[in-house]
Amino acid sequence: MNGATSLVKSLVANGVEVCFANPGTSEMHFVAALDQVPGLRCILGLHETVVTGAADGYARMTGKPAVTLLHTGPGLANGLSNLHNARKAWTPVVNVVGEHALSHIEHDAPLTSDIQAIAAPMSHWVHTSQSADSLASGGAEAIAQASRHPGHVATLILPANTAWDEVLDEAVNPAATADIALTGSRVSNEHIKGMTSILQKAMASHEAIAIVLGGHCLHAPGLELADKIAQHCSATVLAETFKARFQRGAGRVSIVEIPYPIDAAIKMLSPFKHIVTVCAKAPVGFFAYPDKPSTLYPDDAQVHSLASMHDDGVQALHDLVNALKVAELTPRLQEQQTHEEPTEAALDSHAVGVLLANRLPENAIVVDEAITSGIGPTNSTASAAAHDWLEVCGGSIGGGMPIATGAAVACPERCVINLQADGSGMYSLQSLWTQARENLKVVTIIFANSSYAILKHELDNVQATSGRVALDMMELDRPTLDWVAMASGMGVTAQRATTVDEFRRALDVALAHDGPFLIEAVVP
Amino acid sequence: MNGATSLVKSLVANGVEVCFANPGTSEMHFVAALDQVPGLRCILGLHETVVTGAADGYARMTGKPAVTLLHTGPGLANGLSNLHNARKAWTPVVNVVGEHALSHIEHDAPLTSDIQAIAAPMSHWVHTSQSADSLASGGAEAIAQASRHPGHVATLILPANTAWDEVLDEAVNPAATADIALTGSRVSNEHIKGMTSILQKAMASHEAIAIVLGGHCLHAPGLELADKIAQHCSATVLAETFKARFQRGAGRVSIVEIPYPIDAAIKMLSPFKHIVTVCAKAPVGFFAYPDKPSTLYPDDAQVHSLASMHDDGVQALHDLVNALKVAELTPRLQEQQTHEEPTEAALDSHAVGVLLANRLPENAIVVDEAITSGIGPTNSTASAAAHDWLEVCGGSIGGGMPIATGAAVACPERCVINLQADGSGMYSLQSLWTQARENLKVVTIIFANSSYAILKHELDNVQATSGRVALDMMELDRPTLDWVAMASGMGVTAQRATTVDEFRRALDVALAHDGPFLIEAVVP
Repeated sequence: MNGATSLVKSLVANGVEVCFANPGTSEMHFVAALDQVPGLRCILGLHETVVTGAADGYARMTGKPAVTLLHTGPGLANGLSNLHNARKAWTPVVNVVGEHALSHIEHDAPLTSDIQAIAAPMSHWVHTSQSADSLASGGAEAIAQASRHPGHVATLILPANTAWDEVLDEAVNPAATADIALTGSRVSNEHIKGMTSILQKAMASHEAIAIVLGGHCLHAPGLELADKIAQHCSATVLAETFKARFQRGAGRVSIVEIPYPIDAAIKMLSPFKHIVTVCAKAPVGFFAYPDKPSTLYPDDAQVHSLASMHDDGVQALHDLVNALKVAELTPRLQEQQTHEEPTEAALDSHAVGVLLANRLPENAIVVDEAITSGIGPTNSTASAAAHDWLEVCGGSIGGGMPIATGAAVACPERCVINLQADGSGMYSLQSLWTQARENLKVVTIIFANSSYAILKHELDNVQATSGRVALDMMELDRPTLDWVAMASGMGVTAQRATTVDEFRRALDVALAHDGPFLIEAVVP
Repeated sequence: MNGATSLVKSLVANGVEVCFANPGTSEMHFVAALDQVPGLRCILGLHETVVTGAADGYARMTGKPAVTLLHTGPGLANGLSNLHNARKAWTPVVNVVGEHALSHIEHDAPLTSDIQAIAAPMSHWVHTSQSADSLASGGAEAIAQASRHPGHVATLILPANTAWDEVLDEAVNPAATADIALTGSRVSNEHIKGMTSILQKAMASHEAIAIVLGGHCLHAPGLELADKIAQHCSATVLAETFKARFQRGAGRVSIVEIPYPIDAAIKMLSPFKHIVTVCAKAPVGFFAYPDKPSTLYPDDAQVHSLASMHDDGVQALHDLVNALKVAELTPRLQEQQTHEEPTEAALDSHAVGVLLANRLPENAIVVDEAITSGIGPTNSTASAAAHDWLEVCGGSIGGGMPIATGAAVACPERCVINLQADGSGMYSLQSLWTQARENLKVVTIIFANSSYAILKHELDNVQATSGRVALDMMELDRPTLDWVAMASGMGVTAQRATTVDEFRRALDVALAHDGPFLIEAVVP
């Protein structure tokens, strides 16, 4: 058995089921090992941004890491921006990055680069294997490091000789090691007691309280616990702006999301004197702007962390519910609503949202990278059938289509809806080919406004003046992108919709379609 | 005047004419400044790999850097793999990377990352501006650092506040500073004398000599000087495997290229007892393989460096020619040949090569990322009309289409032919949109063999066994990519050719076409 086979065995023994890959020569032994060791499904992406983004989407839905297989430093570099997104979403990801044989590195062949240095900014853990014998334990350690609560990016660099050399010790280690916390720490009784007293004082003084949820607290159980606290304290429960996995729709507690536009966010947060964060950061601006603050809450507000990302936030909410003696309260759950459909012919993102909300399949997964076009669909789906809502957490555009791809691999029985802006879609359109190859149930809705529309808003925010050159950097209409042609070119059935009726018909076809489908919704 | 305007003024004053860009909010002041300061043409790429690869192609043809404009750490990350290629090609590139306002970084907003750390592995120089006042000199310094012989990657990080703050000192610095060498150092007389004596001894002992050229020595003057030496010493002149800019075809000295496949390279180099390198490394394997050496020349061969990349190699060749007293020799120049065109209908890469060679426009620029399909076209164009031949120097696939884009921007009066494998083409297909927008004269020939064909060869070389999973990672035919549809979707006219006649007709149309054109050549 060679090192690569022992690594694959270790990954499989430790529960890894999927490998998103774009291998090259230095990874051939790893790939060959997949034919020797059953249990690891290998899925090809035609650019590494698809590979790493799909691993993000997969792990968000399964709660456990997929492995990515990347070709040396440049292959890793191509996947970095979606690893950045994964890192900001606290998603567990294990990267296996091929490297030259150790003796070959000094010869500085064309592909030689400092892989550890490339990996470091987007990884919580980086390790270069030094021998075939160390690969089984290296793989186990990478999984453990990735699985460390709440989820981390672990990068194992695999020199080719360690992959092809024979292994002397065939033992396979278990991934979990004693000093790695796979669950969040429980916040202390004292901390809960302190928080109880803060809330009681605030209530007594009629000071407005916001509870900002992030991470796993945005799943149904956390939302219900937070709602009990909110009912008792007259608090407002808010969701952080970018959510890794947000459970919403009918039967869920509906909470307000902190908006991206800075003025709207500052206005929303202006009444609060207390900001209680639970697995979330105190709200800050996505960007800095001249003459606007970096923090979005009032200067005189107090920020209280109930639980950090490294704590078990749901348990902390549970403990606080008990401390406040409100366990018996009934969470206020969203009822399903049917929206009146637009009667005008003109299609816009709000019409798309209404038509989608009325047809959203039960238990759908919505991946939202619609950016400026997302406001309508976000609002109308709040009362649609229950669904999971996944966003791009690191602000690096191009996450949407790969995340949708990975989520569909994770949950083949569920329908994935990818709300996708056209500008960001162009960053990772190769995802469509993987969706076609794997026949994934992904309905991509492209909001084709032929622009980086958000930059037009931001130009005002940063007080920059816009001339011809500046506007030219924000317009994608010269030439206009034809998403139907591009999707067809990658084997994905596609239709264009320019009116409400066309979109309604296309959506019905898409939802009934076996496999991926793309709708180019032409919107203003 | 704000900092961004002073930076743009400095760039323009120091000779920068083109900015390849994908800006975001943090770069809005830079973009707005382009409307205030004339002289910097701004070209949008829909993914940063297009932006950095185009800057590589542009600078290879003009000899001076373009500026890239990239959006924070993830935008830079997306461009890293083509910066790796530029670095390995010794191409001058100046990156301007937007960053949060300095006061905003501590708030760890979603896009926050360690930009210096992301830049470092692919940059020779990295600097973060600390104030608006430092931007004019920072821009000048970045240009000087990039222009340091033979060409470097310089990254200037631009915090948003330094872009929007007002400048107190409006002086614009010149780029060249005293301690930066813009031309290569001249190798010493003693070194030339030593090399002369080595060559004379080798000749006396009838030991075979190879002269390996790289860098600027592969332009016509260097080739002619090397040929004079070769005539005198009965030496063989070789080109390094991956060439940034290789001048070849009719009227040029024709030299042999060291092939990529390791067995062929070892065989070619086996007769030589002396390897004289001129701006090239002594040949090493692209990858390591089990039971094969890392160095490609015989163990008993002596390697002599006439000039390193940091020296003026053409001057060194000139000095050696004089020392050997062979200046009066006439270089042996390639005659133009017309090839007999295939009579069979079946299209393959050799037929494409012959048809192209017979029609290659005078002074064309050929960008070769055809990989396994490149052998035929390389051979047949050796005696075609004079042309420049550009390759991807860092082994990171996806360089071809962006380099072709940048070369076409640099040389609007010349025809660019991009020989492009399909697998690597999918890495940066967004380039086509930029070609359409700028109406660039690029004829892209996609060798559509629906596979990562090179990996099939490499699987044997690394002695890995191939099963179903492994082969699945090398086949792109499920589904088959439709390049005509994808190109059309990005506004580029395209035709598919499945026979020799179809290809001949398509090529004639493409060469006569105003603007970009893509031919999908379906080959085995």
